[in-house]
Amino acid sequence: MNKIYVVGIGPGGEAQMTLEARRILESCDIIVGYTVYVALVKRIFPDKRYRETPMRREAERCRMAFEEAEKGYSVAMVCSGDAGVYGMAGLMIELEEEYPGSQVEVVPGVTAALAGGALLGAPLGHDFAVISLSDLLTPWELIEKRLHLAAMADMAICLYNPSSRKRWDYLKRACDVLLGVMDGGRVCGLAYSVGRDAQGQELLTLSELRERQVDMFTTVFIGNSQTRRCHGRMVTPRGYGIKRGSSD
Amino acid sequence: MNKIYVVGIGPGGEAQMTLEARRILESCDIIVGYTVYVALVKRIFPDKRYRETPMRREAERCRMAFEEAEKGYSVAMVCSGDAGVYGMAGLMIELEEEYPGSQVEVVPGVTAALAGGALLGAPLGHDFAVISLSDLLTPWELIEKRLHLAAMADMAICLYNPSSRKRWDYLKRACDVLLGVMDGGRVCGLAYSVGRDAQGQELLTLSELRERQVDMFTTVFIGNSQTRRCHGRMVTPRGYGIKRGSSD
Repeated sequence: MNKIYVVGIGPGGEAQMTLEARRILESCDIIVGYTVYVALVKRIFPDKRYRETPMRREAERCRMAFEEAEKGYSVAMVCSGDAGVYGMAGLMIELEEEYPGSQVEVVPGVTAALAGGALLGAPLGHDFAVISLSDLLTPWELIEKRLHLAAMADMAICLYNPSSRKRWDYLKRACDVLLGVMDGGRVCGLAYSVGRDAQGQELLTLSELRERQVDMFTTVFIGNSQTRRCHGRMVTPRGYGIKRGSSD
Repeated sequence: MNKIYVVGIGPGGEAQMTLEARRILESCDIIVGYTVYVALVKRIFPDKRYRETPMRREAERCRMAFEEAEKGYSVAMVCSGDAGVYGMAGLMIELEEEYPGSQVEVVPGVTAALAGGALLGAPLGHDFAVISLSDLLTPWELIEKRLHLAAMADMAICLYNPSSRKRWDYLKRACDVLLGVMDGGRVCGLAYSVGRDAQGQELLTLSELRERQVDMFTTVFIGNSQTRRCHGRMVTPRGYGIKRGSSD
């Protein structure tokens, strides 16, 4: 059996990669991935063999990985963040049955919700929802429904893919859905380019978020009703204060 | 300024710890944490100085960390999984203002939703909600409301703290809420003791899950309407098939 590892590399830097992920990338014959993520990995392992495909070529990229594995090479397919969360693990497992000589193993990584959250403080300290604003594979009506119901549930919300050239106004549209349920003062946060050179973070209100243009490397956090600013950081407490004494 | 690192150590083994987490644990003077997590870290770094407190002593544990830091020691507070997701990061940031000489830095880690998900395949490949069944700090009515709304939103759901001695029937009660929205055939998964010796996983239906007793080291996954079994693994596809061609 040829092993193909689908590896979550974390937000981008070597420091937030797991030891297992680094060991696999060091020892595999070929690293396959989306051009942008391959570029991140090349900075850490310049001497490996790489194969890359541009965006939107997911199935092609997966088949490329399987074809190398079928030749007998050990292959690592890299994903930014986690391998499963909006990553390639699912498609790789679906395609596995077409390549009987290969076996897919999924290696988890630190997804943007966690890396960006750490930068902001603890915005996801209680129940939360992770929702992508990309409508490439999901009807926009369903995305709006999820935003509405997550807000009704008073869950903290983390938004992936908040924007792109074509979808420049999606974040504003998402904020309008949320503003139908919560008020404009709700504590929100932005994490920029986490783990990369341009890394940064910012706290703002939901009303301010609505007016903001962000890029595709930004992760957006919307607090729940208990979330507060704590000297420059965003904290969603672990509970609702009830029985709080008993936890001390 | 004395740095206190709140470190997510991942599910338990060294392999799923980030390089940054390991570097900090190696270099700090004192490691503070809940007894069970400290025991995991001691296996990796037997020669460090440790301070531990039992469960439910979160605030006491945090103050212990700050007091060591105020003495000038570099301190790492360890959390299993991520530092922020049901972790200590929030409480540490809230208490920071009482200890002007110390500064909290949050170090993310692989939370159980990601580590358990990788073991099962890709159950969280699309939008998802993470919900804890512990009602220690959250009213059970709110937990049920979140389960209901997350199911209405057709989000994959990951359940933390599905059970304990006192809460032996909470998973069954949670399944009953979900069965009000989805049918009993819904694909579900269990990940046991991820990253530890007794590690294991299992696929089952929601009806089967309702009858199952699990321990506090189990993470529970409920698929969305698109989730399927794929030769023994649980896959939630990245999309709803629309425009699927354009992603190939």
